[in-house]
Amino acid sequence: MRIAVDAMGGDHGPATIVAGALDGARRAGVGLTLVGQTDMIQAALATHDQTGIDIEVLDAPDVIGMDQHPAQAVRRLPNASILVACRAASSGSAGAVVSAGNSGAAMAAALLVLGRIPGIDRPAIASFVPSERGRTLLLDLGAVTDPRPAHLVQFARMGSAYAERVGGIASPTVGLLSNGEEPTKGNQLVQETFPLLAALAGIDFYGNVEGTDITQGVVDVVVTDGFTGNVALKVAEGVGALVVAALRSEVTATLPRKLAALLLRPAFRAVGSKLDYSETGGAALLGVNGAVVIAHGRSDAKAIANAVLVAHRAASQEVVAHIGAAIAAPLGAANPSGPATPTP
Amino acid sequence: MRIAVDAMGGDHGPATIVAGALDGARRAGVGLTLVGQTDMIQAALATHDQTGIDIEVLDAPDVIGMDQHPAQAVRRLPNASILVACRAASSGSAGAVVSAGNSGAAMAAALLVLGRIPGIDRPAIASFVPSERGRTLLLDLGAVTDPRPAHLVQFARMGSAYAERVGGIASPTVGLLSNGEEPTKGNQLVQETFPLLAALAGIDFYGNVEGTDITQGVVDVVVTDGFTGNVALKVAEGVGALVVAALRSEVTATLPRKLAALLLRPAFRAVGSKLDYSETGGAALLGVNGAVVIAHGRSDAKAIANAVLVAHRAASQEVVAHIGAAIAAPLGAANPSGPATPTP
Repeated sequence: MRIAVDAMGGDHGPATIVAGALDGARRAGVGLTLVGQTDMIQAALATHDQTGIDIEVLDAPDVIGMDQHPAQAVRRLPNASILVACRAASSGSAGAVVSAGNSGAAMAAALLVLGRIPGIDRPAIASFVPSERGRTLLLDLGAVTDPRPAHLVQFARMGSAYAERVGGIASPTVGLLSNGEEPTKGNQLVQETFPLLAALAGIDFYGNVEGTDITQGVVDVVVTDGFTGNVALKVAEGVGALVVAALRSEVTATLPRKLAALLLRPAFRAVGSKLDYSETGGAALLGVNGAVVIAHGRSDAKAIANAVLVAHRAASQEVVAHIGAAIAAPLGAANPSGPATPTP
Repeated sequence: MRIAVDAMGGDHGPATIVAGALDGARRAGVGLTLVGQTDMIQAALATHDQTGIDIEVLDAPDVIGMDQHPAQAVRRLPNASILVACRAASSGSAGAVVSAGNSGAAMAAALLVLGRIPGIDRPAIASFVPSERGRTLLLDLGAVTDPRPAHLVQFARMGSAYAERVGGIASPTVGLLSNGEEPTKGNQLVQETFPLLAALAGIDFYGNVEGTDITQGVVDVVVTDGFTGNVALKVAEGVGALVVAALRSEVTATLPRKLAALLLRPAFRAVGSKLDYSETGGAALLGVNGAVVIAHGRSDAKAIANAVLVAHRAASQEVVAHIGAAIAAPLGAANPSGPATPTP
């Protein structure tokens, strides 16, 4: 299998992407399709050992900026790297796509080129976040800011399938993010979604979960709308950064503290690695007809390598086929797609 | 001035509440009205030095449990401590109310007994959270899960007035929580609210802010719906707990690390105190016609003491009057209360 990597995306440029992609491909034992401006990719490749990796370079002269309007850019720049990468996945020459570029453009390109899995109305962005018991899959992280209850039901099924195949979690539990645990809590969307999930066959629905439950690892999958999910993920990143900044300032305040902190360096590093979002390998775009991993724009080489590993796992574990099968399965007692059409 | 403290609320019982209330009253230099079952309050008081504090005990035989339905409980238990405390504030015998009990019941009681400030449709819960620059006021934290744009505009005005009076921040900047900084980002509610806030006179509107911006302290006040605000606050608490748990496990992993950690204890304590939500002194219920502070159910004595200090500050800084004046002021170019009624 080959993983197509959008070499032009990300804040750090092609050199970082290529370095991370090579590392990830070597660790995953897969071939690499590097997509972007050929001269820049070749220049980046020249500085690395490529032994044992089957590398292909696909030229994509157009570049989509991080601040360009996604849908417009995708229409106007047919030879942008993310589109060429998606076409490689669509034709079957690549098994998965990784991009750290404009995430809206990656979504638009994936929808345009790969299309949706039958039965999925709206794709969602899902990522594992660190928890006290390991990690929790959180979705949606921003693809659908105003979903309907039926969309959240689809997110629950996709998240459950992804957590099982890529996270290696047998029968994952699924929670609905709310402002309280009781079934009566929640905004209107959550209150309408709760009974649909409770009646849904094929997933292990736990009930409502609160913000604290995400990091406590109360459930394996947390489902929410893309607005709340995006805020939750960024609050988590922000608090992590705040704690690190406060610790750094305190442990370097005096010389004895500095010396003690030196002794604790491996401990700090272990904590940092445990809570490092780059270790989780980017977010998966679930619901499109292909394995697409969206890495953070500020991804370093390590984050890109992890994204390649996740993309490889999503492709080899046939996440798309499993989501398709989950969506095609009977819904159970409730039918979230249309309240007027009861399940026979 | 007296602060009425609901002595029955909270997970730790009257002994903890009374201890914290005495400490807070002494530090604030205010009198105390302890409300609840007299025998329990007297028993708690007997174990403390009461010198120099003007203490009054108001009997309230009814107790509202943490899991009781707020509106029903408030109707069925007219002599519950939170209702008696609100009546003390309503009659003027107390200047403010503090409760760590059922927060829904506190809201219902405050609305019933104190009523709303004219011009406020829905009260909001606001709390300062730690940030890299000090602290940020976040509201709403769960009072209104499905607000309309006009409600968020009222929250912005109330939050700005509260940050100025209680936070001591001159001309606070106000941000609208969204999933991106651009004015086009956001769910439908945010997109409809943005132009109203941009056109609003009397507040310093910064624009959209992201989840990371709360802890970075990009603005002084962050406005959001009660569902998202509640999730954001609880995610922040959860991540804080996750970091502490990870640090504890790592720094106690070996004997040398334990010794080094001992040297860093003051540093850890300083970080803990900086990020400790109990230091912020509970959440203010803004929009009701009185100063009401809702403390966390799990508040220890320190948190209750801080809540008393915040309640005293809210009352002495006349937050209610300032919110009333802010709401009565002209809206500026836009009129969020009704699109069909343009401002003359």
